[in-house]
Amino acid sequence: MRVLAFLDGTLADPEAAHLRVDDLGLLRGDGVFETILVVDGRPRELRPHLERLARSAAMLDLPEPDLAAWERAAQVVIDNWSGPSEIALKLVYTRGIDGDPEAKPFGFALGVEIDEKVQRARVEGVAAITLERGIEPDLAERAPWLLLGAKSISYGVNMAALREAGRRGASDVIFTAADGTVFEGPTSTVVLARDKTLYTPPATIGILPGTTQAALFRGAERAGWSVKVEPLNVSDLTEGEGLFLASSVRKLTRVHTLDGVALTDSSAIHAELAAAYESEYAIS
Amino acid sequence: MRVLAFLDGTLADPEAAHLRVDDLGLLRGDGVFETILVVDGRPRELRPHLERLARSAAMLDLPEPDLAAWERAAQVVIDNWSGPSEIALKLVYTRGIDGDPEAKPFGFALGVEIDEKVQRARVEGVAAITLERGIEPDLAERAPWLLLGAKSISYGVNMAALREAGRRGASDVIFTAADGTVFEGPTSTVVLARDKTLYTPPATIGILPGTTQAALFRGAERAGWSVKVEPLNVSDLTEGEGLFLASSVRKLTRVHTLDGVALTDSSAIHAELAAAYESEYAIS
Repeated sequence: MRVLAFLDGTLADPEAAHLRVDDLGLLRGDGVFETILVVDGRPRELRPHLERLARSAAMLDLPEPDLAAWERAAQVVIDNWSGPSEIALKLVYTRGIDGDPEAKPFGFALGVEIDEKVQRARVEGVAAITLERGIEPDLAERAPWLLLGAKSISYGVNMAALREAGRRGASDVIFTAADGTVFEGPTSTVVLARDKTLYTPPATIGILPGTTQAALFRGAERAGWSVKVEPLNVSDLTEGEGLFLASSVRKLTRVHTLDGVALTDSSAIHAELAAAYESEYAIS
Repeated sequence: MRVLAFLDGTLADPEAAHLRVDDLGLLRGDGVFETILVVDGRPRELRPHLERLARSAAMLDLPEPDLAAWERAAQVVIDNWSGPSEIALKLVYTRGIDGDPEAKPFGFALGVEIDEKVQRARVEGVAAITLERGIEPDLAERAPWLLLGAKSISYGVNMAALREAGRRGASDVIFTAADGTVFEGPTSTVVLARDKTLYTPPATIGILPGTTQAALFRGAERAGWSVKVEPLNVSDLTEGEGLFLASSVRKLTRVHTLDGVALTDSSAIHAELAAAYESEYAIS
C-alpha cells in the first residue's frame, strides 16, 4: 500500500496525479528528500532526518522547511497506514513551478512498503562493487555548488551506479575516489568493523552524514564497541571482520562479496551489531 | 502561455496535475530531457535534439524512445501555440512509477515562452564565472555510470552553479576541471572565437555535444570561418576575440565579463556569428 500526505496535513490518493509537469523538482531535479524507516508506527531518527532535510534545503537555497509541518505530514501517513509493520516514509521537497515568481515549494510525505529485495538484503547481505565517484575528497569544502553532502533528488548518478552493479552481478556500490578514498554507497553509509571498532568516513569529504550509521554507533558504543569517524581507503575494506552498508530502510546490511571476492563471514558480527542498533528502539 | 502534449498526441492542461508523486523522474531525477527552440512554428535542430534524447536515454538504460511519437508530441505543441513567435519546447522522459514492475516511462512535450531574462542576455550578453566541476576530463570514458554527457534531469548541480554565479554578481557559469580544462556551461556549450576560428571542447571529455554549437559551426564555416573541436584551457578563454555560450533558447550569448574582468568587446563578432547561425534557418 501507499499513503500520501501533504504539508497541510491532508491525505491524498497516491495513485492520482498531484504534480504539474513544470515543477522544478521534475524538470531540474531541483529538490531534496529523506527516507525514514517507520516500525510499528514509530519513525526512527525522525529528528535527525528532519534536520538533515533542513540542511539539504539550505545547501540548495530552498526556503527553510517548516519542520513542524513535515513532522505532521509524516504522522498523518503513519496514522493512516494499515499495511505491514514497516513503512519506508519518503519526504520530498521541491522548488515548485518553473518560471513562476510566486512559486511555492512543493512537498509531501509518502509511505510505501519495504521492497522485497531490501528485506532479502537485510537477511542475506549483498554483493557490492567499488566504483569511482569522479570527485576528490577535498572538493566538498571548496566547491559547495556541487551539493556534495546534500540529499538532493538529482539522484540519477546514484541510480546509474546501482544499474552498473547489476550488470556486474552485484547489487550495491561503494563509491571511491581515484586515490582510493572511500565515500559512501549510492543510498547508504559505509561501516567497517575491525578489532571491536566501527569505522565510517567523515561527512566532510562530501558524503551524507548517516542517520542509521549514527544510531548504530550509539548502540554499538553502549554494547562495548569503539567507534571512529575517519577516512577509509578501499584497501581497508577487505581487512576488517565485517563490511556493512547502513541505510534507513535496509538498516545494517552485510557486504558478503566485494568486487567479486568473498569477504570473511561477518554473520555473527552482523547479528551483534544489528541487535545493538535495534536496542536503540527497544520499548523500555 | 504554456502548451502541453503527451506522446500519444493528446493535448493537456499544463496547469493541471499530471504526474504521480512516486514517478522516478521526481523521486530520483531519473530521466532525460531536451529543450528545443521553435521560431515561427519551425523547430530548430529537431532531429539532433531527438537523437540526443535517444542517446541520453540509452546512457540511463531507459527504454528506447519512439522518436516518431516524440516528434508528433512536439508538433502538437507547435500546432496549438498561439503565443509569441518563439517557443522553448521541452521534451521530458522519465522512468515512470517507482516500484511498479509494469511501470511505463512517462514523457511529454511542453512549450513555454522564452524568459525575459534570456531575451535580455541574447542582446546584452552575460557576466560569467568559472567554477570547478569537480571531475577530470578523462572520467567520462572510464566511468559511464557518472552519466557525463547525458542530458539527465538530475540537474541540481547545474542549478546550484547558476545560483552561485548570482551570488558573485554574474549570471552564468563555465565549468572547469582542476587542471584548467574547460568543460561547458550548466545549460550551454562554450565557444571561443580567435583568429577567424571557432573553438569548442570535444564531447569526449564528458560534456554534452551542443546542437546549437553544431549549427553555429556549420553556418560559420559557410561564412568563411574555420572551426575546431579541441580541448580548451581556462587561460584560452581570455585570449580570443570573443567568448560565447551557445544554447537552444539563448542562441549565441556573448560573455562580456569573465570572473569579474571585462573581456574585449565582441559585439561585432557576435553579430557576425549570430547572422551565420540564423542563416542556417533562413527560408530560401
